[in-house]
Amino acid sequence: MALACALFEAAGAAPDIAHEVAGHLVEAEQCGTESHGVMRILQYTREMLDGALKPRARPEIHRHDTCRLSVQANGGIGIPAMRIAHEIAAETAVETGIAAVELLGAGHTGRLGAFGEIAAEKGCLSIALGGGNRKRWRMVAPYGACNAVLPTNPYCIAIPGGDRGPVVIDIATSQAAGGWIYAARAAGVKLPEGLIVDNKGKPSRDPEDYFDGGAILPKGGPLGYGLALVAELVGEAMLGPVLAGEINWLVLALDCRRYNTAPHMRTAAEEILSEIRASTPAEGHNAVLVPGERERDLYTAAQGKPLRIPRQTWNAIEDLARELGVVPK
Amino acid sequence: MALACALFEAAGAAPDIAHEVAGHLVEAEQCGTESHGVMRILQYTREMLDGALKPRARPEIHRHDTCRLSVQANGGIGIPAMRIAHEIAAETAVETGIAAVELLGAGHTGRLGAFGEIAAEKGCLSIALGGGNRKRWRMVAPYGACNAVLPTNPYCIAIPGGDRGPVVIDIATSQAAGGWIYAARAAGVKLPEGLIVDNKGKPSRDPEDYFDGGAILPKGGPLGYGLALVAELVGEAMLGPVLAGEINWLVLALDCRRYNTAPHMRTAAEEILSEIRASTPAEGHNAVLVPGERERDLYTAAQGKPLRIPRQTWNAIEDLARELGVVPK
Repeated sequence: MALACALFEAAGAAPDIAHEVAGHLVEAEQCGTESHGVMRILQYTREMLDGALKPRARPEIHRHDTCRLSVQANGGIGIPAMRIAHEIAAETAVETGIAAVELLGAGHTGRLGAFGEIAAEKGCLSIALGGGNRKRWRMVAPYGACNAVLPTNPYCIAIPGGDRGPVVIDIATSQAAGGWIYAARAAGVKLPEGLIVDNKGKPSRDPEDYFDGGAILPKGGPLGYGLALVAELVGEAMLGPVLAGEINWLVLALDCRRYNTAPHMRTAAEEILSEIRASTPAEGHNAVLVPGERERDLYTAAQGKPLRIPRQTWNAIEDLARELGVVPK
Repeated sequence: MALACALFEAAGAAPDIAHEVAGHLVEAEQCGTESHGVMRILQYTREMLDGALKPRARPEIHRHDTCRLSVQANGGIGIPAMRIAHEIAAETAVETGIAAVELLGAGHTGRLGAFGEIAAEKGCLSIALGGGNRKRWRMVAPYGACNAVLPTNPYCIAIPGGDRGPVVIDIATSQAAGGWIYAARAAGVKLPEGLIVDNKGKPSRDPEDYFDGGAILPKGGPLGYGLALVAELVGEAMLGPVLAGEINWLVLALDCRRYNTAPHMRTAAEEILSEIRASTPAEGHNAVLVPGERERDLYTAAQGKPLRIPRQTWNAIEDLARELGVVPK
């Protein structure tokens, strides 16, 4: 954590931003979402060093009208900007009933679930969707197509839950994140079935087929495809083009307490969620999970314990620190 | 069409409502969505006769605050109520930027895409989701479960598109609508793979396994499951319980023209959509489709031609007309 802060600061980030980003990545690691955890220390530091991320950028908030605000991240790391977008969406919704916040110019936004949870803790249903940069990331085939057209445009939807906290969906619209395909290639292993097609649209398990003009499939066929396409239209046709950062984002928030009191809503939600948890697990599953709960349980269990990081990742972070002459404070 | 009006009126519906519902069902049939087409004439008429639908009910609009309205359908057919919900959501969004409309007490709401299209024609992104009545319709297994807990909670998302009109996603969160399983059982045929599991969670193609304690699978695993669960929490914990009608609905609308001019948005959208249409179809697909376009193309092609209805459906409608002593005007 201290080393992450020191690396980000060495790359030019302000101390408060370095601190927030490092904290977010450690928390993501503790939540079990290693893909959005401490391995990103390497990516963010290098992106700041090579100019892909602007280390000194600070998110700016603009209010356009009563219910509409925007956050301009100015090409900086997306984590503080996305946190602010969810906070002001929820705070505005609590005042007005409903709010829309667009987030532009943000680099990688970290683990989205963390931000949906913030909005839900403020009593809001939140819907965040990102897209608009397919020209840079053609990775996913439209439903019924062979070739990659769309990015993995993700959604985060969160709502106050029962006794164990918010329900949080944090999900790509594709069968797999791009990182999986790279990881399988690097490790020389086959992919699970149903993730990719080759350049003729035939199902494949060979990661090389993806790099040879193939594509990742949309999650749930027309469902993931439709959601990805809407996110692309929102991100580029409505909010775009993407001038800086990864993709453009729209964050909507609705104050649930205008519809039901928080205690009543919690009781009714807990009834639904306890039915879900009491479902019979199918073969290959140990339990039936409520989205968001596994991450919170892992996070709680990780408190007070040393962070477990793959040796390879840790070595790479230490190498980078030596390269930059950085020692943790 | 005249016969449908006459049947609805014989069952007690007011002429204007009978006319709107009959027109909607004929249009759905012409759009190629036969599952939501003229076969529903039989269902709606019978439901009005047996009291499941209130034939004299009229949707009532209430304004709660600047951005929040509700439509109370009072147990009537859902089609006029859902049309009004989308119209006032879009009209309010055009005034305020964003709006939320809850729809309660509505019977079957017909082909949702028709309503998303109305909001998009008014320049809005709309998101409609329905749920909250799993106690009546336990059909779909949560991701990783064997047993049916949730309904097929549908979503309709629409946004202004390119030169061929709005992009409209109208989709259940389950691998199949319940009607498919009933139809396969009635026809004595196997289901396609990947739709249902038996009561032990094993994949099955036998529709009987669904009725013997099995379940429909969520579309896209965690994606469809997560969306269905959020819709259930919105429908019951936030808006519910469901006191009349099928499920409770939330309709959100956002005025896209506050973000980009309509002509600019259309040009940018057309660029995205023409890339989609130009994609290479995968095996088993003739073309790569933009959601909503196939329905509009079929509708246009059907104009001026006689409506083609399966003989069995037509005979059943004529039988019902004779039973009620109805002749078309």
